[in-house]
Amino acid sequence: LFFPSRPSCTEALLAEAAGPGAAARPCPCPLPRGDCSLSRLLRRLLSARRSLDVCLFAFSSPQLGRAVQLLHRRGVRVRVVTDAQYMGLPGSQIGLLRHAGIQVRHDQENGYMHHKFAIVDRRMLITGSLNWTTQAIQNNRENVLVVEDAEYVKPFLEEFERIWEEYNPINYRFFP
Amino acid sequence: LFFPSRPSCTEALLAEAAGPGAAARPCPCPLPRGDCSLSRLLRRLLSARRSLDVCLFAFSSPQLGRAVQLLHRRGVRVRVVTDAQYMGLPGSQIGLLRHAGIQVRHDQENGYMHHKFAIVDRRMLITGSLNWTTQAIQNNRENVLVVEDAEYVKPFLEEFERIWEEYNPINYRFFP
Repeated sequence: LFFPSRPSCTEALLAEAAGPGAAARPCPCPLPRGDCSLSRLLRRLLSARRSLDVCLFAFSSPQLGRAVQLLHRRGVRVRVVTDAQYMGLPGSQIGLLRHAGIQVRHDQENGYMHHKFAIVDRRMLITGSLNWTTQAIQNNRENVLVVEDAEYVKPFLEEFERIWEEYNPINYRFFP
Repeated sequence: LFFPSRPSCTEALLAEAAGPGAAARPCPCPLPRGDCSLSRLLRRLLSARRSLDVCLFAFSSPQLGRAVQLLHRRGVRVRVVTDAQYMGLPGSQIGLLRHAGIQVRHDQENGYMHHKFAIVDRRMLITGSLNWTTQAIQNNRENVLVVEDAEYVKPFLEEFERIWEEYNPINYRFFP
């Protein structure tokens, strides 16, 4: 998938994923509805049935935030790793995800936690240059690769588990 | 390949790639010589025989800059696409690459040219979260995926050619 993605309405997609009742109200916004890189990315994420592991430098896209919350409400096990310096910036979705009860862990390092990948059901890797921000989705040249070959997915799964344990709050030093 | 990569000496690797004469002087620096993510990335790049297409948001790593110049001197067709806002920052390798006669093109957009991929000999895709900077290589959590499946390489080749043509200097507007 390549970006920028043209602005488009993802209400129908998110409503459909939220359940049969929610899809009844058509969105009145004037944005086009067709397929685009963002809608394709959303569809991949929303295909999660058991788990979603997200490892993201910057996460501020409201649509992607809603998709992640929706999966959490649906009972999918969602884990989020992010960057300590970026998670508190205005517009960040991280606070909302935590508020919704989603587990979030972050680095405590000088370097950035600069990964931009997600793993769906431990079998589909979504990775690339794209931070999950509206700026990146609508304005930047970006790429996202979706692969299901175990050969590529496995090292990312291992990297996620390694970072998840390393960023366990019991290891936080609170800036000594 | 995952980063950070521990600091290590890549002199022997670069000297070996530069030709038989250059490898004679062992580097006196105290850094370890072993294999690391940076040396593995360098080896992949230095395997280029015909072409190297680089599409990078930020490029300031001296080692990777030397590798690219070395390929250019060896007769490999090198093309570089980069981001207009980042190419002029202190430490950027872009000026040195241009000075060496390598073709560089950049965006003219408000959004970032945020890709971070390279294609070796039109068959090996090197892509991920990693900008080619020492900060990213040594301090950040980063990933680089190396794939040779045509299914994944082809769309990136097409994206590169599309951007290369779009960023042709004849289209530059010089900030009207």
